[in-house]
Amino acid sequence: MIEKAILLAHCPSQEGIMFDITDFLYKNNAAVIRLDQHIDEDSNHFFIRAEWKLDDFAIPTPKVKEFFKTLVADKYQMKWHIHFQPNTPKVALFVSKYGHCFYDILSRVDNKEWNIEIPLIISNHEKFRPAAEKFNIPYYCFPKNAENKAQQEKEELALLADHDIDLVILARYMQILSQDFISHYPDKIINIHHSSLPAFPGSNPYKSAYIRGVKFMGATAHYVTEDLDAGPIINQNVVPISHRESISEMKRKGKDIEKVVLAEAIWAHINHRVLVYKNKTVVF
Amino acid sequence: MIEKAILLAHCPSQEGIMFDITDFLYKNNAAVIRLDQHIDEDSNHFFIRAEWKLDDFAIPTPKVKEFFKTLVADKYQMKWHIHFQPNTPKVALFVSKYGHCFYDILSRVDNKEWNIEIPLIISNHEKFRPAAEKFNIPYYCFPKNAENKAQQEKEELALLADHDIDLVILARYMQILSQDFISHYPDKIINIHHSSLPAFPGSNPYKSAYIRGVKFMGATAHYVTEDLDAGPIINQNVVPISHRESISEMKRKGKDIEKVVLAEAIWAHINHRVLVYKNKTVVF
Amino acid sequence: MIEKAILLAHCPSQEGIMFDITDFLYKNNAAVIRLDQHIDEDSNHFFIRAEWKLDDFAIPTPKVKEFFKTLVADKYQMKWHIHFQPNTPKVALFVSKYGHCFYDILSRVDNKEWNIEIPLIISNHEKFRPAAEKFNIPYYCFPKNAENKAQQEKEELALLADHDIDLVILARYMQILSQDFISHYPDKIINIHHSSLPAFPGSNPYKSAYIRGVKFMGATAHYVTEDLDAGPIINQNVVPISHRESISEMKRKGKDIEKVVLAEAIWAHINHRVLVYKNKTVVF
Amino acid sequence: MIEKAILLAHCPSQEGIMFDITDFLYKNNAAVIRLDQHIDEDSNHFFIRAEWKLDDFAIPTPKVKEFFKTLVADKYQMKWHIHFQPNTPKVALFVSKYGHCFYDILSRVDNKEWNIEIPLIISNHEKFRPAAEKFNIPYYCFPKNAENKAQQEKEELALLADHDIDLVILARYMQILSQDFISHYPDKIINIHHSSLPAFPGSNPYKSAYIRGVKFMGATAHYVTEDLDAGPIINQNVVPISHRESISEMKRKGKDIEKVVLAEAIWAHINHRVLVYKNKTVVF
Repeated sequence: MIEKAILLAHCPSQEGIMFDITDFLYKNNAAVIRLDQHIDEDSNHFFIRAEWKLDDFAIPTPKVKEFFKTLVADKYQMKWHIHFQPNTPKVALFVSKYGHCFYDILSRVDNKEWNIEIPLIISNHEKFRPAAEKFNIPYYCFPKNAENKAQQEKEELALLADHDIDLVILARYMQILSQDFISHYPDKIINIHHSSLPAFPGSNPYKSAYIRGVKFMGATAHYVTEDLDAGPIINQNVVPISHRESISEMKRKGKDIEKVVLAEAIWAHINHRVLVYKNKTVVF
Repeated sequence: MIEKAILLAHCPSQEGIMFDITDFLYKNNAAVIRLDQHIDEDSNHFFIRAEWKLDDFAIPTPKVKEFFKTLVADKYQMKWHIHFQPNTPKVALFVSKYGHCFYDILSRVDNKEWNIEIPLIISNHEKFRPAAEKFNIPYYCFPKNAENKAQQEKEELALLADHDIDLVILARYMQILSQDFISHYPDKIINIHHSSLPAFPGSNPYKSAYIRGVKFMGATAHYVTEDLDAGPIINQNVVPISHRESISEMKRKGKDIEKVVLAEAIWAHINHRVLVYKNKTVVF
Repeated sequence: MIEKAILLAHCPSQEGIMFDITDFLYKNNAAVIRLDQHIDEDSNHFFIRAEWKLDDFAIPTPKVKEFFKTLVADKYQMKWHIHFQPNTPKVALFVSKYGHCFYDILSRVDNKEWNIEIPLIISNHEKFRPAAEKFNIPYYCFPKNAENKAQQEKEELALLADHDIDLVILARYMQILSQDFISHYPDKIINIHHSSLPAFPGSNPYKSAYIRGVKFMGATAHYVTEDLDAGPIINQNVVPISHRESISEMKRKGKDIEKVVLAEAIWAHINHRVLVYKNKTVVF
Repeated sequence: MIEKAILLAHCPSQEGIMFDITDFLYKNNAAVIRLDQHIDEDSNHFFIRAEWKLDDFAIPTPKVKEFFKTLVADKYQMKWHIHFQPNTPKVALFVSKYGHCFYDILSRVDNKEWNIEIPLIISNHEKFRPAAEKFNIPYYCFPKNAENKAQQEKEELALLADHDIDLVILARYMQILSQDFISHYPDKIINIHHSSLPAFPGSNPYKSAYIRGVKFMGATAHYVTEDLDAGPIINQNVVPISHRESISEMKRKGKDIEKVVLAEAIWAHINHRVLVYKNKTVVF
C-alpha cells in the first residue's frame, strides 16, 4: 500500500490560502492524488482536503505536521488534521435488537471492503452474541437502566480506552448516551437514525411517518452530539413510498436504506473525507 | 372523447365490498378501464377507484349515482363520488412573486397537456399581470394587509363563486388563507410548500435546510387545511444536495422540484385519483 | 403463523374475470388481506394477485386449487399458481469472487429477515468457503472451463435436485449457465447484473459506463433466460454519478446498489409477488 | 452585476499546474468566488474551473487572456477558455411538435430565471408559431424532406450567423442535423433525448422501454455530435416506473424529466460549467 498523507482543514476564507497550500504541496514535490476545496458563500468559510503520496515528498513524514503548522495553519487560524496512511482505524460497534446494520458492517469487514479493525462489540442485550462469535469478535453486554447507566457507561468507556478506539458506531443502538460519554468522542460517534432528519426525530419515526402520510421516507447518519438526533448530518438517503406501504413494510424497506446510509457515512469518516463546522458537514 | 365514469370511494373494510362493487359494474356491463383498490392494514379501511366506459353501461348516466348509492354505498356507509368525463374543471390560479409554478401551469394548459380551464388568476401583487395577458387570462390583484384581508378574501370568494371554480391552486401564493376561506373549498385547494414536509414548515425553508445541513431537499404539494402546512400530502419529491449548494443554488434547484411536484398533484386531482382520509391521501 | 393462500394469475382481459374471482373468494368467505389487479392497456392482458386467510375459507385447503381451476381458471385460459403459506422455500446460492451480495443474503437469513432455507452454496472458486462455514452452510466448489462445464453443471443440477431447490440465486456468479441448466428452472433463477439494463450488458459494465460518461449507474435483478442479460427484469435501481467517480469508486458504490436490488427481487419472488408475461414482470 | 471572469481549462495532469494557476490568480489579487478542479485518475487528465471578481484584479481585463496564455496555458498545452461576465448568450431554439421543453425554456427566460436572449425560434412545423408570438420571438419555419434538407439547413445556418448565435437548443427537434450543420457549432448544440442513454437511442424510446419492461425511465441532455445520440452527456435523470405505467403514461411523465434535464444542462452550459473531453463531460 502506498504511503499517503491526507490533510483536512478549514478556516475563515482569506485570499492566499490556496496559494500557500499549493505552495506547501508543490514546492515540496507532493504527488497530489486528489484535492478538493470549498468556500461556503454564506459564511465565507474555507474548507480543503488534499491527499498526496509521501514517497517523494520533500518533508520527512515525522516533520510534516510541524511544517504545515508553521508554514500554513498558524497563518490562517486553521482547524486541521493530517492523517497518514496506511492506517487501520479501531472501531467499536454498538448494537441492540436490530441486526441489519450490525451484520452489514461485520460483512464488509469480513469481505475486506473496509480497512478497519473491530476489536469489540458492545450491546445492551445478549441477542447478537452468537453472531459476534461467528465473526470472532468479543461481545460485551451491558444491560442498562436508569440506575446503572452511569456505571455501565463508565465500564464501556474503560473498554474503549483499553482498545484505543478511534470511532464508535451506533448500529441501531437503542440507548441514549450521556453527555459525559459523548464528550470523550467528539465527532467520533456515528449514529444511524431511521428517518430523514429533521423530520421525525426520537422514537418510532416509521410510525410517525406513516401517520403523517409522507410520500418519502429515509435514514440519516450523523455524528452524535448532546442534542438528541440533532448532530451534524453526514449522509442521508430516501425512497418513495405510497399508501401501499404499511408500517411493517416501511420498516422492512427502511432497513436497506439505514444500512447503506450508515455504511457510506462510515466509509467517508474512515477515509478522512468529513469536515465538521457549525453543526454541519462538508463531505469531500 | 369517450364518455367515462370514475368512482372514488372509501369506507371501513368489510367482507363483500369488492364483490358488491364488481357486481355493480359487471352485471351492468361496465367496460372497466382501470380498477384500483387498497386496504389500509393498520386502520382496516377500504379504498377504491374504478374507471369505466359509459357507452354500453346498462344504467343510464343520470341514474348511475342513485343506483350506486342504493346498491352499494348505503350498505357500507361509504364516502364516495362518481365523476363523469369529459369534463373540464375550472381552476383558479393564485400567485405572488415567484413565477416558476405559475408559468409552468399556464404552459401546460396552453400546450394542451391538461384538460382544465383557468378563467382567472388572483394575486396580491401586480408582478405577473403582463404574463397573464400573454396567456389571455383575466388577472385580479388583491393586495392584502392585516386590516383588509377579510374584505379582500370576501371579494376573492365572490369571484371564485361567479366562475364556478372547482379547484384553487396556490402556485407559491405567499398569503395565509383564513379558515373561512378554506372552509369553502375542502380538499379543493392545493398548495406547494418548498420543503419536504414535515421538515421545515413555515417561511424560509431553504434557509432552514441550509442551516441544518441536510443532504436532501424537496417540495410538498398538499391540500390546504386550517393547520398551516399540515394538510394531507398529495405528492412530494426530493433531490440530493451537498455542501456545494448555497442557499441561492438551493432556491434555483428547488424551483424545478416545486413545479413538477405541484403539477403532478394537480394532474392526480383533476383525474380523480386522490382520496383523502384521516389527513392522508391515497393516490391511485 | 397464519395459514394463507396466495393466488397469482394472468390471462387475456375479458369482462367478468374480476367478478368471478371476487365471487370465488367472497362467496367462500375468504378474509382477503391484499388484492392487486392490473390490466395492461397495450396488450389488454389481465393480472391478479390475491392473498387471503385460510382459517374460515369454505373450501378445504387440499381442494382450493381444484375448485379455482374449475370455477375460474379454465373459463379464462389462465396461467396461474396458488401458493400456501407458511412455507419455507429452498434456495441455492451461487457465488464467484465478489462477496457483497453473498454476505448480504446470508446475513438476512441469519438475522431472520427472510423465511428461506439455504441448504447449499455453489461456487467456481474456493474463496468463500470460510465464510460459508461461518454460517454453517455446505459449500460445493465446481471450477469450470470449456471442457468440464457440461459435466460440472450436471453435478450441480443433481445437487439442486437432491435438495428440492425452489430458487437459484446468482449472487455475482461469473459463469454463463447453459440453456439446458436454465431450462430446469424457468423463472426460478435470479441474476444480478451490475448495470441498468439494457445499458451495458455483458462484462465490465462499470468500465463501459465510465467510458460513456453516463450520469447515472445502476443494477438490475432479472430472471435468467437463454438470452444473456435479457431476461424479465424484476427490479432495478440507480444512483447519480459524476466525473468525480473513478471506475473503482463506481465499483464500490455499485456493490450497495447491487445487493439491495437483488435482495428486493428475491423478497418479491419468495413472497409470490412476481408475474412473468412476454419477457416482462408485473411485481405486485 | 459584478464583473467576473470564468476560466475553464483542461490538460494532461502534471505537477505544478495548480500552483501556477493559484499563483496567476492570487499574485494578481483575484477575489476567487469559486474554484473547482478535478484529476481524472484513469486518464490522468486535469480539469479546472475558476471564477473570480475582476474589480481588484491586477491584470486589466483586455489583457487577461494574453497573460493567462503566456503564464500558464502554453506551459501545459492546455485547452482553455476565459469568459467574462456579465454577458448575455444568444440562443436559437429549435422545436418540432412537442412543446413541453419549448414552453419551459421560454417561461424561464420570461420569468428572468436565465440570463439569455432568444432572438429566434426555428421549427419544421407551424404548430408553435402562436406560442412564439405570445413571447414576441420571431418564428421561422423550415419544413424538411430528403430533397430540401441541405438547402433548408443552409438558410438556417445563415439565420444563426446573422444573429451571432452562441448556443443551439434542440427542444425535441425531430430532425437529424447534417454533419455540416453540426460542424459549425461544436459543443454548442444541446439535444434532449427521451431515454437514459445509452439505453434506447433513436426513435420511440418510450415504446422500447415499455417493451423491455424496465423499472426506470429517463432523459438525457447531450451535446450533438455526428454520431446520433452518442455525444457527450451533460445531464441525465430518471424516475422509477412499474407495470402500472402505460406507454402514454410514460410519455406524460417523461415530459417533466425531459424539460428539467434539458434546463439543467442549458444552465450549466450558459454558466460555463461544462468541460468536454474524450466524448465525456466534467460539469463543475
